[in-house]
Parts: sequence; C-alpha cells; structure tokens
Amino acid sequence: MSERIVVVGGGAAGMSAAAKARRVNSDVEIVVYEKSGYVSYGACGFPYFIKGDIPRIDNLIVRTPEAFARQGIQVFTRHEVLEVDADAGTLRVRDLRSGEEFSQSWDKLVLTTGGQPSRPPIPGLDLAGIFTLRVPEDALAIRRWLVEEQPRHGVIVGGGYIGVEMAEALVAHGVQTTLVEMLPQLLPNMDADVAAHVLDVLVRHDVDVRLEHRVEAFEGADRVRAVVAGGTTFPADIVIFSVGVRPATTLAVQADLELGPTGAVAVDDHQRTSHPAIWAAGDVAEVHHLVTGKPAYIPLGTTANKQGRVAGTNVAGGEATFKGVVGTAAVKVFELEVARTGLSEREAREHGFDAESVTIEASDRAHYMPGHAPLHVKLVFERGSKRLLGGQMVGVTGVAKRVDVVAAALHAGWTTEELAALDLSYHPAVAPVWDPVLVAANVASR
Amino acid sequence: MSERIVVVGGGAAGMSAAAKARRVNSDVEIVVYEKSGYVSYGACGFPYFIKGDIPRIDNLIVRTPEAFARQGIQVFTRHEVLEVDADAGTLRVRDLRSGEEFSQSWDKLVLTTGGQPSRPPIPGLDLAGIFTLRVPEDALAIRRWLVEEQPRHGVIVGGGYIGVEMAEALVAHGVQTTLVEMLPQLLPNMDADVAAHVLDVLVRHDVDVRLEHRVEAFEGADRVRAVVAGGTTFPADIVIFSVGVRPATTLAVQADLELGPTGAVAVDDHQRTSHPAIWAAGDVAEVHHLVTGKPAYIPLGTTANKQGRVAGTNVAGGEATFKGVVGTAAVKVFELEVARTGLSEREAREHGFDAESVTIEASDRAHYMPGHAPLHVKLVFERGSKRLLGGQMVGVTGVAKRVDVVAAALHAGWTTEELAALDLSYHPAVAPVWDPVLVAANVASR
Repeated sequence: MSERIVVVGGGAAGMSAAAKARRVNSDVEIVVYEKSGYVSYGACGFPYFIKGDIPRIDNLIVRTPEAFARQGIQVFTRHEVLEVDADAGTLRVRDLRSGEEFSQSWDKLVLTTGGQPSRPPIPGLDLAGIFTLRVPEDALAIRRWLVEEQPRHGVIVGGGYIGVEMAEALVAHGVQTTLVEMLPQLLPNMDADVAAHVLDVLVRHDVDVRLEHRVEAFEGADRVRAVVAGGTTFPADIVIFSVGVRPATTLAVQADLELGPTGAVAVDDHQRTSHPAIWAAGDVAEVHHLVTGKPAYIPLGTTANKQGRVAGTNVAGGEATFKGVVGTAAVKVFELEVARTGLSEREAREHGFDAESVTIEASDRAHYMPGHAPLHVKLVFERGSKRLLGGQMVGVTGVAKRVDVVAAALHAGWTTEELAALDLSYHPAVAPVWDPVLVAANVASR
Repeated sequence: MSERIVVVGGGAAGMSAAAKARRVNSDVEIVVYEKSGYVSYGACGFPYFIKGDIPRIDNLIVRTPEAFARQGIQVFTRHEVLEVDADAGTLRVRDLRSGEEFSQSWDKLVLTTGGQPSRPPIPGLDLAGIFTLRVPEDALAIRRWLVEEQPRHGVIVGGGYIGVEMAEALVAHGVQTTLVEMLPQLLPNMDADVAAHVLDVLVRHDVDVRLEHRVEAFEGADRVRAVVAGGTTFPADIVIFSVGVRPATTLAVQADLELGPTGAVAVDDHQRTSHPAIWAAGDVAEVHHLVTGKPAYIPLGTTANKQGRVAGTNVAGGEATFKGVVGTAAVKVFELEVARTGLSEREAREHGFDAESVTIEASDRAHYMPGHAPLHVKLVFERGSKRLLGGQMVGVTGVAKRVDVVAAALHAGWTTEELAALDLSYHPAVAPVWDPVLVAANVASR
C-alpha cells in the first residue's frame, strides 16, 4: 500500500504543500482536512470582497476541491482535526456537517493549521455584529451584515493591516467609521513617522482614528450597540475586531512539537518540526529572518506559499529548503500604498543594532509629468558599517515593487552605498531620473 | 588664482558634474559651455511635451542657468566649443548669438558633449518637416510644426525608444502615422518576442508599422511630401528621423583622446580619459557593463547623471568611482510599459554566453482584482550554471520597477534560484501572491 500524507489545514500553506507533494511523488496518497468550507483562497482579497470590488467569494478561490481531486488529492472541507496521536500516527477527525467522528492514520503529517485572531477576554466580545476576519465565512458574514443590517456606525478595533484595509471597506458602504488602536500609532511594524501618513489618509477619508484607546467593553443586548474604549463610548452597529493573529498551535502542542521563542512551531530550513514525520508551514510556523538571523513570527501569504512548497517537496521524498524572509509586506489604505522590508528603526534597536535612518521625500515620477505624487522613503541602516537593515515607503504608485529592490539589497547583505550604485530603470512616467530609492541610499551613504 | 574647471556640454552629465564639483570644492572656478539654448533639461520628457501632456518646455528644466550662477557656476548657453587644445589647455569657443569667437583656458576639462542623432546620407534628409529629436529646440520645432502645419500624414523612421514614443505623440495630434524600421523587429535591444508586444500595441492604436523597410529617399520640393521605404512611397507632412544615437566625439578625437571599441570615449572607473586633465561622462563616453565585464555604449540619462557626479567629484579633487551598469532601461508605448535589464537573449549569445531563456505570462495583480492585466516576463540565463544574464518585461503596470529587482539580482551576480528565493512584497492590488518575477525564476530554475 502506498504511503499516506495527511495535511491538516487547507489554506495557502496546506494546499501548496499538497499540490507540490503530488508533483514530486505521484504514488503517495494525499489527504487534506480543512475546518472551513473552503480551501485555496486568497485571504488578502477579503477586504475588497467586503467592499464590493469583487462580486463573489468564489472569485477568491484559486483552485476548488474538485480540481485538487483530479490531481489525486482528497480534500475534505468542514472537517476538523480534533487530536493528533504522533506516536500512533493517527488523527481524530470530526465531520462538521454530520457530527460524525473517525480516526485517520498517516505516515507523514503536514501541519498547516494557520493563525487565529487574538481574542482577549473583553466583556461583550461574543455579541452579534462583532466580527473577526480570517476565513471566507467571516468575509461572507461581514458583507451580509453590511447589506442586510445597513449599519450606520462601525468601529474597527486594531490598526494593523486588516484594520486599516477594513476602514476603506466600511467607508465604501457608507458606514461612519471609528478606528480604535491601543498603541500610539497605526501599523505597529512600521515606524511611527511612516505610520503617520496612514493616519493622515484615514482622516482625509473621514475615519475617526483614536490612538491610545484600549477597548474596555462591547455594549448591547442581543447585538452590539456600542464600543467603550479609552473611557469613551462609541456607537457601533458593526465591529471589526482585528488586534492581531496568533499561531493556531493547539494540535502542535498536543502532538508535543517544539515551539520556538515566538510561540509558533519551530521548524528547520526543510520545514521539519521536532517530530521526524511531521512538517509545518504557514502561519502556524516560525520563519527564519535573514536580517536578524533569528526565528520570527510573520504570518503572511507569500511565506505560507513558499514554506508550503518546501514542506510538500520534502514530505513527498524530494529535497528543498526555505532560506527565510526579510520581512517584506505591503498594504493599501485608500489611495495610499505602504510597504516595508527588513527591520523598522524600532525593531532594529530592539534587536541590538546601532541603527540610524534617513527619510526623503521625492516624486514618484518625473516632476514634469502630470499626476506625479510624493513618495516617502525611509532607509534604516547600521551606523558605521552602513549595512542596510530595512526600508519603508509610502506613496500613491510604485511603492510595493520599489520596496522589493530594498528587499533584494537585504538578501544580498548590501550597504547603503551598494544600494546607491544600482542601475535602476528610468522613464518619466514611472520614476524620476534619480529613483527615490537611490536618492535615499545616497543620502544615507554620506 | 583659483583653478578653472571647464565643462563642455550642459546636459545631464555636464550639469551633474558642475554641481557636484561645486559641492566638493568651493574654491574652484567652474564654467559650462552649452551649444543649445538650454541646460539641465529632462530630455526623456520631450515626447510628452510634443504630445501636449506637458504644457511648456520650461517645465522640463530642472535648474536654470541663473540658479547655477547662484551656486557660483558660470553657464554660457548658445556657446559652441569649436576646438580643444589639450596641450595648451585652451578652448576655442564661438558665441552663437554674436558670432564672436574667443579662447578660454582651463586647468581641468570635463567633456560631456553627449550623443548626436545618426544621419546617414539619404537623399532629401535636409527637407523641412524632417526632424531629429535631441535638444529642447528640436522638441519645440516639432510641436510648432504639428500645431502650425497640421500635418495629416506622419512617418517615423526608426523603431527604437524615440520612434515608438513619438508614435504616441503623433497619434495624439491626429496624425495618421507610419513607422518604418529597417530591422525585422522594433526595439532592437529587446528580443523579438518581447518587441512583438510593442508592435501589437502600435497596431492597436492604428500606427502602420512597416518592418524590414529601409528608407531610400525623402521626396518633396521645399518641404517633405513623402518617404520612400522598402520600395513603397508613404505620404508624409512630418517625419521624425530617429535611427539611433552616436557619441559626439569630434572634440574628443581632435583632443586626441582614446576612443574605446564602441567608438565612444574610453574612460576608467573615475571617468578619466586617456588625458590626465580631461574627464568624460554621459552619452559621449563608454560605460562598464557589469554583466559582460566589457565596455558598452548605452546612452541613457540615468547613467549620464551618475557618471557626471563621479566626474564632478574627481575633477574637483574628491574621490568617487562609477562601478558600471547592467543595461536597465524602460520605455512606454501608449498603455504599455516595457523594460529590460542585463542582456537580451540575442545579446547574451553575441557575447559568447551559452544562454537560454524562459518566458511566462502572469497577471500584474491578484487574478480576482478588477483591472488586472497580463504581464510578460522573460528571463535570460546561462545554461548549466543558471547564472542570471538579463530580464525583459511587458505589461500595463508595475513593469519598470519590477525589472529593477532583476537589475539588483544582476548586480549581485545571482542565479535564477537565488532570484526565486527573494521575499518580495505582495498585495492583491499590486501583485499576485507569487510575484511574476518569482514565477519566472522558479520556472528557470527547474
């Protein structure tokens, strides 16, 4: 009988692992269990589905269970894995449709249980009308609520990526929107001076942003009516609760897998866990950070896809490694594109670097071209050595893919001078003759 | 008396050199002679000025002679340098306004005479209504002709960067436009399969493109009436003649400076020529190509600016080096963005590389986002070693700055696998979760 690989979790990491395992090994049996009703979906599109830019949730599906079945991958949605017995090589699974439970044996296991929204114990958090956003069912429920309940006042709790993107979605539905954030800035993994531009654009679009407001309670009888934060009561017919994501490690802990310093599952460069027959990938796992040289927890779809492929290759008998990340991420807030890579200045100091930074404002294209807009570039580097540690950018166009040049420089381990020497493209419609990245690198090199 | 630096040519290279020299050394005397009426202009904006997107030629001026004067840089426009005596350290200069000639001594000379449009001996090339495009006067003359003469038929000779961009400008003026190109493809420094997309977009906008048509004659009495090319006669009330640029080396040759294998002035990494007191930079000079390791002639504004700064630093007693280029360039043709870096597949073979390539078509953003458009990525690499040699891209958005990532990879000397390992940014509005660069690099790495 052929070997059986079981994948727990059908998100980006799980389905990448399954698909890659099949390509590497056509003999092995591959089974995927997914708790939600969907696999292989583009979660980063949820805010745009909720906003209405994307008509159907199906549009976000990359590949259906039927398409996976044609590849010889058995996908079971609405199946929750309750327990892993790592010694026996079995799982206990519940079919959420029928309620039936059964046992499933495996030879090799890929754990891709993902992340789960943090839910601190706040009174009233379970009221109707309060949503977290993680799976397609969440996105559907939020859009349905917006359409059916026609909420007039919305409160977003948390100013991270999901929070700021959901502000745009709520405003598009005509909801008077308040965003409350416990910290003194939005986007905590950016520096405060960069995040200030995001605050500006939200305010420009009539979002009431309240920094340093910690949520104390949600009020309402059957459904939410208000949010109490920082001593103020904000009316709310809808709440998006997005205060962060934690790795969903319940099964990993129960299987006695080693967790790393971040609390996520520790993996090596083959995505192997501490158990010889169990691999992990995606938002449940740590990732090696190439700038700090340490493990990090940075749950993102790009990394999940790459780790999934590596796990899938190795679990199927192939050989692949994942070198790590430099912490590149992008977000869009109304017309503003914001992106970062490497370490923020604060992160660099927290990691013990003697960090300094430069920030420049340039034009995103030639100054004489119609429609040009300001672009802000911040570079973080080590004092003395001028080794590049990170970059952050804010602008209207050409931000994310410009940050990629800085990301490449971090992979290469370059100094600011080496970055400044790059032969970058120029056309008046897409850049000034001195690309803003080069301008910043030149200033940093002085 | 303080040392006198004379800069011959007030384009990007010359004015960068002058400005940098002043910053490095506040004691030295700096004099610039420029033949045209303008210095420090954005020549890449000419097609958009002619088209009408940019209202005034002044909008293209980065800094005026008066602004340079305030920095202590004496700029003489409409002054042609007729002769260099390198041994005596003098120049013969003609004031084109008064016709007066005079001699000017120099201690150090920076030669930035730029490039000049090729003008092969074709009958009728001097007829009125036939334009080359190099200096602001050319751009003004073309726009004036378009407005005053209201030409109905235009012929563009040459399918390089200027030719394809001028097609957009002529079409915007309602001119029925024919583009004739001697070679079997447009954009000769791109591969034919990539250039084919440019042909498509021109045809889509009703430009009559005639490949493998060599111009035999221009017809007309006082002014151009037709172009004879490939045996066919095309009516023409305006002709843009853009068959390439050659280094303007007349003065360099006359000063006995060494020319390199490309025919441009040979320079070292300090922009020094073969004469100890003469530097050269910009379109008159060669440039070191980091992929081939050989000198190349690639006249572009980005390089002119960088070389000018290095020449300016060194001529003023500072110390700077220019490492070289990887051949990055971008062009826009109607809605299409096209960019390239490194070597095309044909160039790679010409340089003796055992080159192969992959081409992928991907989406420029997540497949579910409205407005997504196809992006074509071609990577050229060495067989066996998989060392990256070049990249070319065509699409509607995010092309030029994506090519910059490949440019960085060329600077780093990476293989396709190293490129595939990059942690690039992802947001559904600006990229698919697997960036097209990574998809191409993954396919190339198989």
